[in-house]
Amino acid sequence: MGKTLVYPKRDANTVNRYKHRATYDLGAIHSIINSSQVLHVSFNPGPSDPFPAILPMIGQMGSFDYPSASIDEPLDCYLHGYVSSRIMNLARASEGKGLPICVAASKVDGLILSLTPNSHSYNYRSAVLHGYAELVTDEAEKLWAMELVTNSVLSDRWRHSRVPPDKAEMSSTVILKVKVVDGSGKIRDGGVSDEKKDKDNVEVTERVWTGVVPVWETFGEPIPSPMNKVEEVPEYVTSYIASTNDQNRGYARSAVGIPLPTEEEH
Amino acid sequence: MGKTLVYPKRDANTVNRYKHRATYDLGAIHSIINSSQVLHVSFNPGPSDPFPAILPMIGQMGSFDYPSASIDEPLDCYLHGYVSSRIMNLARASEGKGLPICVAASKVDGLILSLTPNSHSYNYRSAVLHGYAELVTDEAEKLWAMELVTNSVLSDRWRHSRVPPDKAEMSSTVILKVKVVDGSGKIRDGGVSDEKKDKDNVEVTERVWTGVVPVWETFGEPIPSPMNKVEEVPEYVTSYIASTNDQNRGYARSAVGIPLPTEEEH
Repeated sequence: MGKTLVYPKRDANTVNRYKHRATYDLGAIHSIINSSQVLHVSFNPGPSDPFPAILPMIGQMGSFDYPSASIDEPLDCYLHGYVSSRIMNLARASEGKGLPICVAASKVDGLILSLTPNSHSYNYRSAVLHGYAELVTDEAEKLWAMELVTNSVLSDRWRHSRVPPDKAEMSSTVILKVKVVDGSGKIRDGGVSDEKKDKDNVEVTERVWTGVVPVWETFGEPIPSPMNKVEEVPEYVTSYIASTNDQNRGYARSAVGIPLPTEEEH
Repeated sequence: MGKTLVYPKRDANTVNRYKHRATYDLGAIHSIINSSQVLHVSFNPGPSDPFPAILPMIGQMGSFDYPSASIDEPLDCYLHGYVSSRIMNLARASEGKGLPICVAASKVDGLILSLTPNSHSYNYRSAVLHGYAELVTDEAEKLWAMELVTNSVLSDRWRHSRVPPDKAEMSSTVILKVKVVDGSGKIRDGGVSDEKKDKDNVEVTERVWTGVVPVWETFGEPIPSPMNKVEEVPEYVTSYIASTNDQNRGYARSAVGIPLPTEEEH
């Protein structure tokens, strides 16, 4: 009870700018990763290419060995996405050691409009993990990870679709497992912050509107496929959309931390 | 007229998976970058660190030398963000050559819920650039880039805030200019796509709801700062919010490409 696990601070993951916004808590970092629809995964293609590569991928933190592990405990990062053959081949070739990669996720929660451009900012949450990626070869773990990742796209979708995947589907699917070495997060919330020189300048304060524009991701009304034969949109879909919208909007507004108008926006 | 500029295909930026979704058009790629609130920037911290690093940054494509250049012409990528001293020092040390970096942006436009997990997907737009980053040292170019980046956060904000930045603000701000070597984009739109084996399976089609959940970024009602002295939210703020919301929502829904219910969602 009361113990918060944190990632070790190394040169590579230590936040040097706006340190007070930094977090090394596993729970905070894993939550940002798990609530992000897209992760940006960086790796080095090889000695002949000077540029690191970035792929957008779908992923999720979890523990196959300890499925009951909670979000603030040590977890692996499972990636499934637009896996170019390059990252697959590199991970395959790195056998035993794994491919060094970086996984990042960022969410913008609000525009901070202050008196002067230099004090403009975003409310945001970002997380970065470093680790070694290997292909998951164990069939049971792969199937478990496929379910984990599918349900991250839409809660409870897996068992409501045609499962299990057949042999061809299993062999065409690649799951990368990232053993995490370190991680860090940054969270900025709150309102506008300006310097005294501007706050005391009446010409400026009477002319420049300051405040926060909350930003969040919205899920719209589901649009049935022309082939769809199920009359009603299922409850697990509509309730996921409603609760995610409420959560996203609620977070963006509460992050501002100043009194909100009671009137409903639309 | 009618000429579309494309980035050269090299190993590093050639899309091998779902080639029909790939684009090398400068206009398409630059538009994805410019409409993204956060860019993920990857670089290699140095020989002692096996992991590439990723920083979330704010950035924008533009041309200081040819300010009238349109979105589909050759442009540089200007970055200003949570610039750790590491990337600044690396870019400074790379003088003359520039620091090799990768810039990525991704937007999810919809959840594609098909019959089986393997055919699940997102509607999305993603872009990747490779290039060499250097610090902008010319004061006029730096000021121009600061205005460009500030106005990407909220259109027309720069001249409505306290400008120009003073000496201390100019020297504390770092702008990176990326000379782009190559780029690529991927765009997935449309509806559900399933395999014949599942579409012909009545047990499956009568049980599994299929369709698209549109996803877009929403800007909420502006929340004035407790220090704010301007009574009304200015028109350039409210109109930017309204038009961005309309555009974002409109794109996510039109990307589905199937008839939409006429009823307004909220």
